[in-house]
Amino acid sequence: MEKRYDVLVLGGGLAGYYSSITLARGGKSVALIEKESLGGTALRWGALPVKKILDSFKKGDEKFLSTWDRDLEVLDNRIKNNLINEGIDIYFGEGEFIDSQSYNVGNTILEGDYIIIATGTESASIREIPIDGNRIITHKEAIDLSVIPKTMIILGGNVEGVEFAALYAELGVSVTIVEKEDSLLLGNDEDLVFPIENYLKNKGVNIIKGVGAEKAWTEKERVKVILEDGRTIEGDKALVTLLRKPNIPRGVERLNIIVKEDKIVVDENLATNESHVFAIGDINGIMGMGHIAIYQGIQVADYILHNTPVDIKYEELPRAIFTLPEMAGVGKQEWELTLPYKVGYSYFKDTWRGWAKDIEEGFVKVIIDQEEKILGIWMVGENVSEYVSLLSILIHNKVMVKDIKSNLIIHPSLTEAILEAVLNA
Amino acid sequence: MEKRYDVLVLGGGLAGYYSSITLARGGKSVALIEKESLGGTALRWGALPVKKILDSFKKGDEKFLSTWDRDLEVLDNRIKNNLINEGIDIYFGEGEFIDSQSYNVGNTILEGDYIIIATGTESASIREIPIDGNRIITHKEAIDLSVIPKTMIILGGNVEGVEFAALYAELGVSVTIVEKEDSLLLGNDEDLVFPIENYLKNKGVNIIKGVGAEKAWTEKERVKVILEDGRTIEGDKALVTLLRKPNIPRGVERLNIIVKEDKIVVDENLATNESHVFAIGDINGIMGMGHIAIYQGIQVADYILHNTPVDIKYEELPRAIFTLPEMAGVGKQEWELTLPYKVGYSYFKDTWRGWAKDIEEGFVKVIIDQEEKILGIWMVGENVSEYVSLLSILIHNKVMVKDIKSNLIIHPSLTEAILEAVLNA
Repeated sequence: MEKRYDVLVLGGGLAGYYSSITLARGGKSVALIEKESLGGTALRWGALPVKKILDSFKKGDEKFLSTWDRDLEVLDNRIKNNLINEGIDIYFGEGEFIDSQSYNVGNTILEGDYIIIATGTESASIREIPIDGNRIITHKEAIDLSVIPKTMIILGGNVEGVEFAALYAELGVSVTIVEKEDSLLLGNDEDLVFPIENYLKNKGVNIIKGVGAEKAWTEKERVKVILEDGRTIEGDKALVTLLRKPNIPRGVERLNIIVKEDKIVVDENLATNESHVFAIGDINGIMGMGHIAIYQGIQVADYILHNTPVDIKYEELPRAIFTLPEMAGVGKQEWELTLPYKVGYSYFKDTWRGWAKDIEEGFVKVIIDQEEKILGIWMVGENVSEYVSLLSILIHNKVMVKDIKSNLIIHPSLTEAILEAVLNA
Repeated sequence: MEKRYDVLVLGGGLAGYYSSITLARGGKSVALIEKESLGGTALRWGALPVKKILDSFKKGDEKFLSTWDRDLEVLDNRIKNNLINEGIDIYFGEGEFIDSQSYNVGNTILEGDYIIIATGTESASIREIPIDGNRIITHKEAIDLSVIPKTMIILGGNVEGVEFAALYAELGVSVTIVEKEDSLLLGNDEDLVFPIENYLKNKGVNIIKGVGAEKAWTEKERVKVILEDGRTIEGDKALVTLLRKPNIPRGVERLNIIVKEDKIVVDENLATNESHVFAIGDINGIMGMGHIAIYQGIQVADYILHNTPVDIKYEELPRAIFTLPEMAGVGKQEWELTLPYKVGYSYFKDTWRGWAKDIEEGFVKVIIDQEEKILGIWMVGENVSEYVSLLSILIHNKVMVKDIKSNLIIHPSLTEAILEAVLNA
């Protein structure tokens, strides 16, 4: 059977979801092909479930563990219904490219004027650390919490590793993080990482820094890990967060597109060498983050619909780490700066609203340059991922200290700490 | 006794507090004169305590009532210590102007090169509704919760009235609001007011709209109120929020400053006719809100210290109403607009984080003009007063729909609803 669509979208993760919905709303006929389950890494096996579990802890609500299967069903239906309600046809199965305009899935040949590859990445073994999905696992198994291990080794103190460490520590698991670098959460200033590391330590997490894992294997129901310094540690499970590899669609060699260093090469409008074929989300390797996937999805759709050039402000990228406390912010951090700068801090507990709410932890850090331009606004504390929304526009618009002093912030609010931090800089 | 200072500040509310602290940090010697208690309306008898009580309800923590006296002591000490730590001398007592450079308080004559009047306003009786401080009361008595009345009539469905209605309703008091206008919270779009009104109704609040109170008096331990339509209602207490009058300092007639319609007239730098005398906060009648007082305090200090012109973006004023749910936003609302515009909505429950958090209520409303410029961003929901921080700068910088689509918002976050609302507009 053959079916024709305006656009074929490969992959039902965030990037595929948002591009499909935007295209369908714009009047295009869309086929979405998903090889496994809708939702992808972000919604199904990583970011979102971790947040859901941690959010449930915040509310003192621990019932989550027994209801994850049901939640997953709800999520599945929600994603599916949203797509179907926009008139999008969903095809399940892996399939393969026949040529640059047709894709075969099951017994159906789908043809499209445009094709969007949004197939993402998945966790991968490194040579001496073979993932077996049972004891040496990835986030996909780690989020399936039907059996809670007593001890868990997390290889990699990056965002994924630290978020899972928070989750497992909250569940009472004895967690060890192994991080090759001298600090957790590389790419973040020490003062921002400190409260998160401190929280993990208070939860009993054992943090090994400055030494990587060399080898891991299973022995008598236990995972053993040899570190670079020769030490051996062991636990019930090891979660590997060290490497991701792209899900390159089958038959891609029949197209004239370039795959370099495991990434599908795209131009500024996210188009491949074949101008009607696009690659968005983790697969293009620009930045592997959920909000990047969403914006690329929306904007590539706008490009196809209206020829609007893709314009995403990667430079002012807001970032968040969803631990307890959260870390979030926009713009530059100190470690990235070469020119002179000044830093100002203010603590949420010192705001009037912080007093009203009995807030104990958290602060705002503002970094400004010599001319008093705001370079970065960073926060640690409960819920701060919500407080930095759209502040990226401020950084992009080169907002100055005087602008922060002229534009009113609501009183009483915790975010008055932004003004205070600026005054303290 | 005589004492000389660089600056005399009259009034220890928000405006006086922030101007004193900023001046002291800038190297000026400051005397702060307070006739009653530090903190003023915002911190002591109104905004902040109401938020503290409502915040404590959110946490399911009802112990507040018995601890307010202790909290007030903590607040008092905190304000006092912050001032003293900056080297500010505090004088208690009403005092009066001797001339345009000296002020007499108790046995001390204070002299200052600059004088800042920040004496605020206080609730006032209207002719047939005489406040007695016992049964017919103001926010000052209403916040002192040692005795909880069974029934409470609130005269005025403005922000103060509605916030107190929320507070008393949460305490189980049978509340009636009387509002002369046809809707509560005049100056806000219906769709934003609706969820707040709905919440009040669900809490059993009786809302009388479109008819004002004509007369109120006490009779046999009960307050009776005659409405304009002839109806009589009664309750244990009546809270009057209808009128505020300025606290003009005594002896002001010895200065060459202009008081017009109960406001001290100031120029764009908040200076009176006497160029070394300033009036900030509620007393100048520009806008009676806490954050206005704070920014005027900081900026008048900068003007005195560095001759920096006062520049506050009143047009893009962020506003919040601290009920449960809260309402908050920046820029224009529909009722203010005369030119054509479009509106987009998005519900927090439809965001991925909203799903993760089991959020049921709340939404974002975005208003854009024909050229896709963002005119207003408004929200209803828990905590939204924190989500609009600094969005005023976006409005001021004339941010467009395309900017919202280019500048990343963190995923997963509730504030992704801003992007969705823009896409829906």
